[in-house]
Amino acid sequence: MLGLRAAIEIPSVSEQEDKRDNVFQMAKWLVHEMESLGITVKQKDLGKEPGKDIDLPPLIIGRYGSDPSKPTILAYSHYDVQPAALSDGWDDEPFELTQKEDGRLCGRGTSDDKGPLLNWLNMIQAFNKAGQDVPANLVFCFEGMEESGSQGLADALKKESAGEFAKIDSVCITDTAWSTIDRPTLIRGLRGIMFYHINIDGAESDAHSGAFGGSLSEPMTDMVNLMASLVDSRGEILVPGIYDDVLPVSAEERKALGEIKMSKDSLDGGINGKLLHEDQADNLIARSRKPALSLHGIERASPGKGASTIIPGRILGRFSIRTVANMNIAKIDELVQAHLNAKFRQLGSKNQLSVQLTGRGDWFFEEVDHWNYRAAIQATEQVWGVTPNITSEGGSIPIALDFKKVLNSNVVLLPVGRADDHPHSENGKCLPLVNSGLLG
Amino acid sequence: MLGLRAAIEIPSVSEQEDKRDNVFQMAKWLVHEMESLGITVKQKDLGKEPGKDIDLPPLIIGRYGSDPSKPTILAYSHYDVQPAALSDGWDDEPFELTQKEDGRLCGRGTSDDKGPLLNWLNMIQAFNKAGQDVPANLVFCFEGMEESGSQGLADALKKESAGEFAKIDSVCITDTAWSTIDRPTLIRGLRGIMFYHINIDGAESDAHSGAFGGSLSEPMTDMVNLMASLVDSRGEILVPGIYDDVLPVSAEERKALGEIKMSKDSLDGGINGKLLHEDQADNLIARSRKPALSLHGIERASPGKGASTIIPGRILGRFSIRTVANMNIAKIDELVQAHLNAKFRQLGSKNQLSVQLTGRGDWFFEEVDHWNYRAAIQATEQVWGVTPNITSEGGSIPIALDFKKVLNSNVVLLPVGRADDHPHSENGKCLPLVNSGLLG
Repeated sequence: MLGLRAAIEIPSVSEQEDKRDNVFQMAKWLVHEMESLGITVKQKDLGKEPGKDIDLPPLIIGRYGSDPSKPTILAYSHYDVQPAALSDGWDDEPFELTQKEDGRLCGRGTSDDKGPLLNWLNMIQAFNKAGQDVPANLVFCFEGMEESGSQGLADALKKESAGEFAKIDSVCITDTAWSTIDRPTLIRGLRGIMFYHINIDGAESDAHSGAFGGSLSEPMTDMVNLMASLVDSRGEILVPGIYDDVLPVSAEERKALGEIKMSKDSLDGGINGKLLHEDQADNLIARSRKPALSLHGIERASPGKGASTIIPGRILGRFSIRTVANMNIAKIDELVQAHLNAKFRQLGSKNQLSVQLTGRGDWFFEEVDHWNYRAAIQATEQVWGVTPNITSEGGSIPIALDFKKVLNSNVVLLPVGRADDHPHSENGKCLPLVNSGLLG
Repeated sequence: MLGLRAAIEIPSVSEQEDKRDNVFQMAKWLVHEMESLGITVKQKDLGKEPGKDIDLPPLIIGRYGSDPSKPTILAYSHYDVQPAALSDGWDDEPFELTQKEDGRLCGRGTSDDKGPLLNWLNMIQAFNKAGQDVPANLVFCFEGMEESGSQGLADALKKESAGEFAKIDSVCITDTAWSTIDRPTLIRGLRGIMFYHINIDGAESDAHSGAFGGSLSEPMTDMVNLMASLVDSRGEILVPGIYDDVLPVSAEERKALGEIKMSKDSLDGGINGKLLHEDQADNLIARSRKPALSLHGIERASPGKGASTIIPGRILGRFSIRTVANMNIAKIDELVQAHLNAKFRQLGSKNQLSVQLTGRGDWFFEEVDHWNYRAAIQATEQVWGVTPNITSEGGSIPIALDFKKVLNSNVVLLPVGRADDHPHSENGKCLPLVNSGLLG
């Protein structure tokens, strides 16, 4: 596979500022590879990282073909990676390409997203080798900050919507992974996210629970009561009205979800998690087509020296809601705020409450009755001999929605990585892999 | 005041192993001072610190007088101190004695507990100077590990109960502090403590809330529901039966508590905490004569790398109950376990729960209609011209109960420090002080 070994050896970790040079080096390497295939490349300078004195890596825009009789497809991928170190528990050096006994290729970025990115170049190469014309005009959009919040991308999209990306017919994103290990997936839905902070303020600092326990209004008591009012142990969100606008799941969609061949690991994340639903379709619907509320933790807003019997004076609770079509962020926020404030009044607490929506990203749900999807299905059938699963996923990928909204275009997510690639693995029990079939 | 300056200059910090030599140096200095006053001193070797290869400082036992016609009083104090450094925010070098403009004496240990300890020697000196006989036989019990859990003391007490401490008529502990800044206090009650861990085990490691939120049984949800079932925002413990054996507060005791002149800082801990009770007597009863349940925090039992949208796989919740007369630890533990297990079954969770009582110490509540207390009241009236407050305190001092149980003796706590001495201060906003009146 062309270039993957060289690409893996460049540790283009975007989140580590002292390694930012490597991301630029990766961009340079990539531009050279692209140009050697006859792709016209422009590097867009995205300026400084917001609030910091460090340059953002360039957005690499490439054009291959300009035949007005062909459709023009924008292909998105990214050339930065997550951090990795052998000491995290990897079996092999993460920034070297290692072929395992089963043929799979390991190394940081093989699956997310250098392998999938290079697939586009391998594909052009294969057409050239076969003496055939690539049947579409391609516009490449390769970024170097995906693992660090895609900084600068949304602005660049807006800027180029009337420029480099003006005449796009559809978008294809090759990131993320298949839902299973045995069948490719097209992703038509992604959940949105609303991230909340609950601050409860009782005292200027912590108190000794021996001296003051029983006499002070304790923020922890309020916090667990508020959090318990949000969701129950069966996963049901208890905020009144929150399910009102949720797009129902059709009988056909439910049937298809039940028929996907999911491994136990795919269902429980490979962590022996306890599933709330025995039925596979219920399970997949719960994690992709319904909203979910997760309580992430309670932190001390004014941490002290860790004495074990303190009454924390100020605390911060964090939770998030994954949203789905057709929920409206403003409306949901109103419901959540009203619910928490009413519950707090009901507690009769003397502490101060503030609830803040600190982060948000809308859901994505694409029309699949479109030539963009039909083409992706047909291509999958030709290469793999199977019809792909078409799924909604639980996670949030803001750029999918950005492409859809800004370019007013149909977007298909066509993952290359398998469900068991663990592309962000931190503990080294599993290694990023990419299915060698697609890279062969 | 005899010797206080020299005592403060020895940084006898017991919890820092590399400063343990200073604790031994302090013992040596103290033995010399005691012997110079005619006190017969024995140093009891307490062996190694449990689980460590470091010697415990000696228990210093002194005898002064052996007149069979006089009562024999055991006086307890300690010669080790908490750590301190100028960089913590002290106004002056903590291991030097500094006299402030208002006459108060500052330095680590002035109030806790070198000042109070030296009071005993100053007292003998004063009697000598006045040509009068000390009206009691005194047995001193000075330890050097109080700030590190009084390691070795309980065993030594048992060993000496038929030895050095065989013929004790009563015990006087000069540690802790007055309840207020304007009137001495005798302490007749201390709360016990029961410390709990709640472990909820959902998965082997954390999951991504985007990918799995809604499909997994989340330990955080169970935890906040369990914790919310323990105590309400008014401070009421919700475990059925927990108040059954609590010794009622008499009308007389309530009246006395209402009449103590407490400053706002004494009431709210100087941290602008929100009081649950407007009425002072209710407030003091809530923190000293009633049980209290404080939720200390929720920690991740298998912490990861702090991603903000995870579903924690395993978590640990910590809470404690302060107990009062006449609660029984075994019975309360049964009630707590039964309540939490019933609540958990009710939640219908698929996770695993375990509840562990990880620490315990019984309450202390002393008979005040005893010559030991009458003598302490009389002495306070003679020195200060006021009748002392007699209070129960909310904190736990296990040694008070050890002396009472092992020596089968009445115990009075006669603090020397004032309510605003902040003897364990870490942030340096306030300094340990001792009322110079008592040291004059």
